[in-house]
Amino acid sequence: MKIIPVILSGGSGTRLWPLSTPETPKQFLPLASSATMFEETLARVADSTRFAPPLIVANARHEALMRSQLAGKPATFLLEPCARNTAPAIALAALHAPDSLLLVMPSDHVIENVAAFHAIIAEAEELADADWLITFGITPHAPETGYGYIHMGEPLLPHVRRAHRFVEKPKQEVAETMLHEGGYVWNAGIFLFHARAYLAALAKHDPACLKACEAAMRNARKEGDVIHPAEADFAQAPSDSIDYAVMEKAAHVAVAQVDMGWSDLGSWDALADLLPKDAAGNAFQGHVLTHDTRNCVVRSVAGKRIALIGVEDLVVIASGDDILIMPKGQSQAVKKIVEQL
Amino acid sequence: MKIIPVILSGGSGTRLWPLSTPETPKQFLPLASSATMFEETLARVADSTRFAPPLIVANARHEALMRSQLAGKPATFLLEPCARNTAPAIALAALHAPDSLLLVMPSDHVIENVAAFHAIIAEAEELADADWLITFGITPHAPETGYGYIHMGEPLLPHVRRAHRFVEKPKQEVAETMLHEGGYVWNAGIFLFHARAYLAALAKHDPACLKACEAAMRNARKEGDVIHPAEADFAQAPSDSIDYAVMEKAAHVAVAQVDMGWSDLGSWDALADLLPKDAAGNAFQGHVLTHDTRNCVVRSVAGKRIALIGVEDLVVIASGDDILIMPKGQSQAVKKIVEQL
Repeated sequence: MKIIPVILSGGSGTRLWPLSTPETPKQFLPLASSATMFEETLARVADSTRFAPPLIVANARHEALMRSQLAGKPATFLLEPCARNTAPAIALAALHAPDSLLLVMPSDHVIENVAAFHAIIAEAEELADADWLITFGITPHAPETGYGYIHMGEPLLPHVRRAHRFVEKPKQEVAETMLHEGGYVWNAGIFLFHARAYLAALAKHDPACLKACEAAMRNARKEGDVIHPAEADFAQAPSDSIDYAVMEKAAHVAVAQVDMGWSDLGSWDALADLLPKDAAGNAFQGHVLTHDTRNCVVRSVAGKRIALIGVEDLVVIASGDDILIMPKGQSQAVKKIVEQL
Repeated sequence: MKIIPVILSGGSGTRLWPLSTPETPKQFLPLASSATMFEETLARVADSTRFAPPLIVANARHEALMRSQLAGKPATFLLEPCARNTAPAIALAALHAPDSLLLVMPSDHVIENVAAFHAIIAEAEELADADWLITFGITPHAPETGYGYIHMGEPLLPHVRRAHRFVEKPKQEVAETMLHEGGYVWNAGIFLFHARAYLAALAKHDPACLKACEAAMRNARKEGDVIHPAEADFAQAPSDSIDYAVMEKAAHVAVAQVDMGWSDLGSWDALADLLPKDAAGNAFQGHVLTHDTRNCVVRSVAGKRIALIGVEDLVVIASGDDILIMPKGQSQAVKKIVEQL
């Protein structure tokens, strides 16, 4: 049976401001390559011998953008009438395809080694068929404080272990301890499970969510390849993450561990780490002039010309009428600016 | 007899790029106040009991801009057919008004204490009437390497001394020695003399310049308040500064010393020094958002929004489609960028 990719496209577009905005959140931008992250996500599951056409759970305002980036390839759209976090979003997909294996993926992550991704999916598939809920854990390389962690338990398959405990984004010293102790992986927010297993777990651990989503799909409006779940019903769903609502509570949860060049590109610093650099350590895109400048990241879209003199380790992002300037290492503070807008 | 202000407006507009450009050099911008530097220069000599309407020596491309900033006030324009430095520019003015006292001023300098400026003019006037060439020397406050210096000799009036020696822009240690020894002033490039005295000195020390300018004025085309000196003749004038051609060589040259809050605003650092700062040491103009930012200078024109996070001592200038970013103290390198354009 082919796996149905469920692509989640609900990001609000604040962490990579000013390039990403509510109108064009980061999944629709070419950030780590010349393709957009949404296009890269589609390409990862384009092999029609293994994957069915994707089921895309998204905000209605982005429909035209998504169709343009799909470039004619088939897909089904589940357009959320309001934002309700991942547990309800995935419930809509599971209710739409209750007899299928679902591979749930955010649309705005980088995966450099797609072969490793496909290999771990193949390994984990038999457990998913046996109604385990599989979450993907990334082998950690650094004590990142921007990711959640999962502590792994007993082995089930060569690269799959039972999930023992979920850890929220940790403080620096906690992250260092976990990295040192081993047995922890980053929580990638990517999942593989049978729709019936997810719906069963939801029925047990978050029945209000399931009830709201069932009503929203029962009363949905359908137009061609677009499904509009009913807003009045969907709005009743609690706004919970799948981790909180299901994965941390369900009985048969496993972690598939993989090292695949993954990043959630959750900040300008994360992107700065990924970009290829020139001899002076600079990563430039757009029209940039420099004198005595090192280790800077500059993105200039829409024709602006950026001149840098005598600066180091600076991030400069120009988009529309907005220009963001900050040193590397400060990108968590972008939200402080977005709050002022 | 009223003094005729001769306003020189020949700047090429590179040092305050990207705000100043060849189309709109710095004299036509509001930099240190809400008025442009050209308007401030006009206002300094607006007292019609002491000053006649100005004689403006300028580039023809700026005529409309100057008329708009004159706002209907009378003036005579001497539009240079090509750029030939200050000695020929001033010769055109002297030939146009050969029986007058001329106060020659660049149009792009800051003078904060206009009363002090007027007082030193009043003191020096009798020497100018006696055919001395008076140059204005600024009491130095720091070992600036961006200005020329004048070593003063014997006293002639309370604040006027014979000019002993002109010193080109010095190296740092030479500037420090001059400041320590005393008797030196900054060469402001402002002059007071009778037209006949300047023309006599030019006849003696740079006769080729005088000859070319005489022909250019003899063959000039006049339209209302505009004089177009003949290009074929004016182009023959050597491109010399008044200091080099006349002041360093003539016999009766005096320095009128004054402390009047003068700056030639020759760099973004010079402007940064002048601007009023907020409690965090920032001087912002335009739409600026900040988080954890100190001692920065930001100018944003044409609606751009600049967001600064975690930066200090940075200069950010956004104008048109250009954005300049550099630390304070680096503004001499702006020309390295302009050369790349």
